[in-house]
Amino acid sequence: MKKRALLSVSNKQGLTEFAKQLHELDYELISTGGTKRTIEEAGIPVLSISEITDFPEIMDGRVKTLHPAVHGGLLAKRGNEDHMQQLEELDIQTIDLVAVNLYPFKDTIAKPGVTEADAIENVDIGGPTMLRAAAKSFEDVAVVVDPADYDEVIAGLKDELTFEKRRTLAAKVFRHTANYDAMIAEYFTTKTEEAYPETYTATYEKVQSLRYGENPHQSASFYKKANYEGASLAQAEQLNGKELSYNNIQDANAALEVVLEFEQPAAVAVKHMNPCGVGVGENIYEAYVKAYEGDPVSIFGGIVALNREVDEATAAKLKEIFLEIIIAPSFSQEALDVLTKKKNLRLLTVEMKKAKQQTHKLTSVSGGLLVQDTDEGSVDVTELEVATSRKPTDQELHDLKLGWKVVKHVKSNAIVIAKGDRTLGVGAGQMNRVGAAKIALEQADEQAKGSIMASDAFFPMPDTVEAAAEAGVTAIIQPGGSKRDQDSIDACDKHGIAMVFTRMRHFKH
Amino acid sequence: MKKRALLSVSNKQGLTEFAKQLHELDYELISTGGTKRTIEEAGIPVLSISEITDFPEIMDGRVKTLHPAVHGGLLAKRGNEDHMQQLEELDIQTIDLVAVNLYPFKDTIAKPGVTEADAIENVDIGGPTMLRAAAKSFEDVAVVVDPADYDEVIAGLKDELTFEKRRTLAAKVFRHTANYDAMIAEYFTTKTEEAYPETYTATYEKVQSLRYGENPHQSASFYKKANYEGASLAQAEQLNGKELSYNNIQDANAALEVVLEFEQPAAVAVKHMNPCGVGVGENIYEAYVKAYEGDPVSIFGGIVALNREVDEATAAKLKEIFLEIIIAPSFSQEALDVLTKKKNLRLLTVEMKKAKQQTHKLTSVSGGLLVQDTDEGSVDVTELEVATSRKPTDQELHDLKLGWKVVKHVKSNAIVIAKGDRTLGVGAGQMNRVGAAKIALEQADEQAKGSIMASDAFFPMPDTVEAAAEAGVTAIIQPGGSKRDQDSIDACDKHGIAMVFTRMRHFKH
Repeated sequence: MKKRALLSVSNKQGLTEFAKQLHELDYELISTGGTKRTIEEAGIPVLSISEITDFPEIMDGRVKTLHPAVHGGLLAKRGNEDHMQQLEELDIQTIDLVAVNLYPFKDTIAKPGVTEADAIENVDIGGPTMLRAAAKSFEDVAVVVDPADYDEVIAGLKDELTFEKRRTLAAKVFRHTANYDAMIAEYFTTKTEEAYPETYTATYEKVQSLRYGENPHQSASFYKKANYEGASLAQAEQLNGKELSYNNIQDANAALEVVLEFEQPAAVAVKHMNPCGVGVGENIYEAYVKAYEGDPVSIFGGIVALNREVDEATAAKLKEIFLEIIIAPSFSQEALDVLTKKKNLRLLTVEMKKAKQQTHKLTSVSGGLLVQDTDEGSVDVTELEVATSRKPTDQELHDLKLGWKVVKHVKSNAIVIAKGDRTLGVGAGQMNRVGAAKIALEQADEQAKGSIMASDAFFPMPDTVEAAAEAGVTAIIQPGGSKRDQDSIDACDKHGIAMVFTRMRHFKH
Repeated sequence: MKKRALLSVSNKQGLTEFAKQLHELDYELISTGGTKRTIEEAGIPVLSISEITDFPEIMDGRVKTLHPAVHGGLLAKRGNEDHMQQLEELDIQTIDLVAVNLYPFKDTIAKPGVTEADAIENVDIGGPTMLRAAAKSFEDVAVVVDPADYDEVIAGLKDELTFEKRRTLAAKVFRHTANYDAMIAEYFTTKTEEAYPETYTATYEKVQSLRYGENPHQSASFYKKANYEGASLAQAEQLNGKELSYNNIQDANAALEVVLEFEQPAAVAVKHMNPCGVGVGENIYEAYVKAYEGDPVSIFGGIVALNREVDEATAAKLKEIFLEIIIAPSFSQEALDVLTKKKNLRLLTVEMKKAKQQTHKLTSVSGGLLVQDTDEGSVDVTELEVATSRKPTDQELHDLKLGWKVVKHVKSNAIVIAKGDRTLGVGAGQMNRVGAAKIALEQADEQAKGSIMASDAFFPMPDTVEAAAEAGVTAIIQPGGSKRDQDSIDACDKHGIAMVFTRMRHFKH
């Protein structure tokens, strides 16, 4: 008896050649709808699925392959005499190869103005069933979900399509159906507003393998979320330099997240996932110079993100020091000419017009996963609660606003010192708050006079205020909420410092 | 015409009552195999699926519901005249409710000695197809995958099962099939040794909703990985205190990961995700006292993990200070009596005999996901490369081993100072290495004389060695690999310090 192949694909890429090769390998082809027409038009003989099932395709194709003549032919264990006997009695032939891909649910829901009815119509039922049945029977059936695998399958059929190869194809099918249903589940779960349901299945598409992870003995890869609308490293285009490493991606993401806080021209330098210098200016050159001056030492070997096109002057300035990566919405041709002279300097463009998108942030713990909303909290700095007898001046308010935007992105405990549209010092990742303040103030040095201080969480004691006062800080922004707030307020009043409370904390670990 | 309900469940919980209620609501019941027998034994009339399909159940049940009489009845759009006309012509009746759950794939693969054939046999094909078809048709069909929803569905049917409720049931179905296929995909992908395939779908089960995330304006939940064999917070049992917060779980996980490094009795105190004191002793009391002495200030308000049962003496000592959480494999009754006097003190038991399991560590970036192997790297401290003219003494080697185990778990850049089975100082999360060393040495203070230093990454310059020498450190462990290693080696030799290279880095961010 001839071997049989069942082909039913929404993606017609490579189909004709694949069908031709199967025909030459003496497979009898079975197909449906548009797939069948394409094969027929290429002059290759093909049976209709209805000829196999002796049943019409009904309901606009909603039901055509969900039939025992198909699934008996897929699920029968060839080594099981009873199974084979039953097939014979029911006059069902085995199917030995399945090539199926699914209704384009992902692309459908990405279309502007898509309706829920469109989405529902694109939930494929018959396709996943054929794929899963064939994959379950991988000991006897070859199953192909990806046109990219056609050539390898044909090569295998000409020689031997091994157990291992068939299992690899089956594993890919289950990954595909898992990915497919995870997207469908997310779509409907969002409609039903269940943020944290009884199971959590997150699905991603590969961007690239990485040479290694956080350390050379750890393997790693980078994946992206389908249909993500916000600015993202995962959609970046790389114009120059070596490929990104794991640590590069973490750092670049940190830099991108800070620069996206600003509407005016802004530049951010990042080292070990913390911003070390942030500057805002009339133009991007001025912004970068300010970011650089924020910490001219730590920026060395760092990552810089800018939210405007990099022009020639800015490029020339950027080129003066060793940087790992520069990220911007675009680079002028002149800027590219300047920067690509450095062969290893990674240049990335990221579309920055899109707002950030509220999504889930995933953090592994051993055997578990913490899922939370990303921190998109912001406060209106002009309507803050003034805790001290002195109110901040307009200039102080301006600087407090910058400090607050930056400190949100510094690892806790975090303190930022800022003045004149740039940071002067950043204290990150400390076990106690005054320790972070000391690091930031030490960095700011003499410039701290007349500066502002931003703190990601409240002051448990007045010691941080005392340190700020001693260095010449004149205004402070912090969440407030400590039992001992009054001690910090008193310390501010004593030194004439204006302090505002945001009532919003920004821990980041 | 009577409404029809199709019931086919592997989990029989609540089935009889559900079937009885449906019967009383005048539903005609259809069922298969064991489900049908259970319903019949309860004296409730039920049709066999074969009576609907006019087709035998074949291949040990592999093919029974994959039939147009079932799927036409599920997928027909009730509002579509053509669909309804086709059903009439084919003598197919609509099915209005589906209650299905799936072959227990997860439980099957968790069994010791499970074969691949067992796993394959437990890949359900018909079940997911019925669930998915019914869920696609949620506008017309009620679909129940979880016996816990039976009561609510019956209540809805008696009154009105709204569009929103039916959509909620459908969303749950797609979450369930996504979760099911993600587990199957992981099982077969592991067999095929593809660590980072073209799509990555990670699936988890809910442990608990959290009051909020890293900050009060972020919502959050905690999930666990099914069939995870290693020690995990997700399997912890809480004996006392308020429920865990997001930051508690992160910190507790950090503490657990450090204490699992040790075979001897060990205790670890953690603050802001970094170990601040680690001690090893002859017994758990001694270990805890050493951990406490590692930093008697930072431990306040921290988390302590211990790898032996907490006895009364240790409990009394633990009770002396304010702690957020205590984690141990168990607590003696006497210890519990002591500690539960503090109503808010969270006590957790975690099974610690199991080794940690190599899995993937997931880290979100905007619109993407970094996936890497967890850092399970370790070195044999007795066979290290000695870089200096002096070799470490046995006592130094002993301390270097402890320092190296701890520094792996400190956020980068990380320096640990240790002596006599405990840490003396921990420098964490610094942008430059010598900064981390200064923090650790300052903490160690006078005790640094005769201590060892561990560094998570190489020294780019000899300044850290100089700082160590000045404080009295006599031995250093670090990966090596800097272009300027020789400068650090020379500095060690000048001061008589023994330095070993691990050739393994432990960045952690």
